[in-house]
Amino acid sequence: MKEKNYLVIMAGGIGSRFWPISTIDCPKQFIDILGNGRTLLQETVERFKDICPKENVWVVTSEKYATIVKEQLPQVPSTNILLEPCRRNTAPCIAYAAWRILKENRNANIIVTPSDHHINDGNEFRRVVSTALDFVADKDAILTIGIKPTHPDTGYGYIEAKEDTCSIDKYSIQEVESFKEKPDRETAEEYIAKENYFWNSGVFIWNVKTITDAIKRFEPKIAEIFEQMYPIFGTEKEQLEINESFPKCRNISIDYAVLERAENVYVISGDFGWSDLGTWNSLYDFLEHDKDGNALVGSNTTLSETNNCMIHTLQNKKVIFVGITNCIVAEHNGLLLICKKDKENIIKKLTDI
Amino acid sequence: MKEKNYLVIMAGGIGSRFWPISTIDCPKQFIDILGNGRTLLQETVERFKDICPKENVWVVTSEKYATIVKEQLPQVPSTNILLEPCRRNTAPCIAYAAWRILKENRNANIIVTPSDHHINDGNEFRRVVSTALDFVADKDAILTIGIKPTHPDTGYGYIEAKEDTCSIDKYSIQEVESFKEKPDRETAEEYIAKENYFWNSGVFIWNVKTITDAIKRFEPKIAEIFEQMYPIFGTEKEQLEINESFPKCRNISIDYAVLERAENVYVISGDFGWSDLGTWNSLYDFLEHDKDGNALVGSNTTLSETNNCMIHTLQNKKVIFVGITNCIVAEHNGLLLICKKDKENIIKKLTDI
Repeated sequence: MKEKNYLVIMAGGIGSRFWPISTIDCPKQFIDILGNGRTLLQETVERFKDICPKENVWVVTSEKYATIVKEQLPQVPSTNILLEPCRRNTAPCIAYAAWRILKENRNANIIVTPSDHHINDGNEFRRVVSTALDFVADKDAILTIGIKPTHPDTGYGYIEAKEDTCSIDKYSIQEVESFKEKPDRETAEEYIAKENYFWNSGVFIWNVKTITDAIKRFEPKIAEIFEQMYPIFGTEKEQLEINESFPKCRNISIDYAVLERAENVYVISGDFGWSDLGTWNSLYDFLEHDKDGNALVGSNTTLSETNNCMIHTLQNKKVIFVGITNCIVAEHNGLLLICKKDKENIIKKLTDI
Repeated sequence: MKEKNYLVIMAGGIGSRFWPISTIDCPKQFIDILGNGRTLLQETVERFKDICPKENVWVVTSEKYATIVKEQLPQVPSTNILLEPCRRNTAPCIAYAAWRILKENRNANIIVTPSDHHINDGNEFRRVVSTALDFVADKDAILTIGIKPTHPDTGYGYIEAKEDTCSIDKYSIQEVESFKEKPDRETAEEYIAKENYFWNSGVFIWNVKTITDAIKRFEPKIAEIFEQMYPIFGTEKEQLEINESFPKCRNISIDYAVLERAENVYVISGDFGWSDLGTWNSLYDFLEHDKDGNALVGSNTTLSETNNCMIHTLQNKKVIFVGITNCIVAEHNGLLLICKKDKENIIKKLTDI
C-alpha cells in the first residue's frame, strides 16, 4: 500500500511577500524561516517520511531552483525533480507531475502539497493524510485538507462543506459545497462561527486516474500536452520537450481548473497547527512571543524597551533594539527591512519581485 | 620650516559610543563613518598633507591596532607607529611621542590631534594650523584650537579665553582663562552667548621643548620614564622597554596633567566645520538631511513614510524602511542596531565595550 503513495511538492513559488529573507534567487520554501535549522522544503519532505518511500517523492520547481532543490533534498532522486521552464500556476504543474507518475504507477495515490507551509503536529497531520489516502485509493474523489480555523483570518481562502454530510462511511470527510475567496473581516467572522467552514490548505489527495481524468475533462488542452509527451517521459528528450510544450499550457490554478468545477470534491478536516506563513504578520501571529510580545527568530538579540516586534535576524552576530515598537525587522544576505507592522503591504511595492 | 613640523595622531581609542560600526576590534577612527571612502584616520592624515612631510607623521595606538594602522596608512613609516601596551589616557601617549620626536629633532614643532574627528573645510583648517605652528615655533606656548560654537552643544568641553586678550601680536590668539567640563543645556547657552567661549577640539600645538618641559614640571614621574628610555629610542629594545615601562605611567589626560595647570596656555579660534562625531546623534546633526529629515550613509536605501532617522548601512545591498521615525539604524559586519534617537545613551550599557 505504502508503495502506491506518491508525493508531489510544488516548489516553484517566488515568495514575493517575505522580503528580504525570501528573494527571487532563493524564495521562502528554501529558507529556514522558523530558525529551526531546516528549510520549509526540507520540513515538507520530512513531514511525509512515513507516508511514502523517498523514491516516490516528486518535486516540481523551476529550472532556476534545480540546484537548490538538489542540495536541500539529496535523498530525492534527481530524476524526480521536474523543471518548469516558466510559471503557469498550479494546474499545469500538477498535470505534469500526474502524468509523469501515471507512467510510473497507474495505481498511484497522490498527495499534492505546497512546499512553504508549516505544521506543528506532524503526527496528527500524518494521521489525517493516511486517512485521506485510504479514502481516495479506490474512489474517484478529489480530496482537500481543510484546516479547522482558529481565528477569523482574512488571508486564507475558505472551504464550505455540505452541512448534511458530517461523515462519509468510516471517514470524517465531507462533501464540498463551495470554495470561498479570501473574505473581509466581517465575512471571516461569519465563517468561523459555523462548523462547516475550513481554511483551504492547498493540500490535495487523489488517485492518479481521478486527477488525470479530471484534467482531461476540464482542461483538455493541458491534458493533451502531457498525453502527447507520455512516451518520452523518463528519456533524455523529456526536458527539451517540456521546455517546448509547457509554455503552451494555460496559466490557471488547480482550484479554478478542477476543484471549483468538479462534483466529486471532498474535504477532510485537520487540526494540527497549520500556517501558510504567508506574510510577516502571519509569521508573527504563528510564533511564540516573549513577555513583551516580541517574536524572535535568531539568537544574539538584546532588546530594551522593545515591544510587539517581529524580528528575524538569523545571520546576525549581535542585534540590539532600543525603544522599538510594532515593527518587522529582518536581515538576510545584506538585505535589511525595517517596517511598521501595519504597513507590511507596502513592502511588495518597494521590492523588485 | 616645514621640516620642523611634526604630527602626532592619537589613534588608540576604543570608540565605545558608535556601536555597531565602531567595535573594540575596529574602533571608529578606522571606519569610513561618513561613507566617503576614507576612514577617519585616513582623513586625519590627509588633512595635514601640506603641513608636514610624511616621515614626520607619528601615530600612537595600541598593539591591537598596529596592523590596521599600517594597512590604512602605508605612507607612514612603520617605525613612526608607536604602540602602547595598555591604555593610559592622553598624557602618557603625548609624552611618549614628544620624547620620541625630541630624539629626532630638538627644534620640532608638534601638532597633536585626535584621529576620529571630522573637519569640513580643510583649507581653513590648514590656515589655522599654520598660524598656530608659526606662533609656537619660538615661544614657550601651549596652544589649543578652539572651535567657534554653532549651537549650545552639551557634548563638548569648552575653553574660556581671557576677554582682554583679543589678539596677541599679529595672531588671532588669546590667552586661556579656564577649561570647562561638558555643560548642561542652560550653561551651554550662556557660553555661546559670549564671544570668548570655544569648543575644545582636542588639537594641541607646541614646540617639543615646551611640552617636554611642561610634563617634567607637572608630571615628573611620567617624564622620568621617557627620559630613561631616551637612549634606546629607535633601537630594537624600544618596544620591549615600552611594554615594561609604559604601564607604570599615571593614567591621566593631557588636559588634567598639563593644560589646566600651566599658565602659558593659549587658544586659537577656528571656524572650519568641526565635529568630534562623538555620538550617533552628533553624526545625525552633522550630516545633511533629506526632505524628510533623514541622514543617510550608504546607498541602496529605499524609504517610505520614514522621517528624522540616522541610517548607516554601508555594507547592505538593499535597505527598505517603511513607517519608521526618529530612529538610529546601523548595520556593520553582522551587527545590527535599531534605537530610538532619544535612547542612545542605553546603547553603551548593552554592548560589550
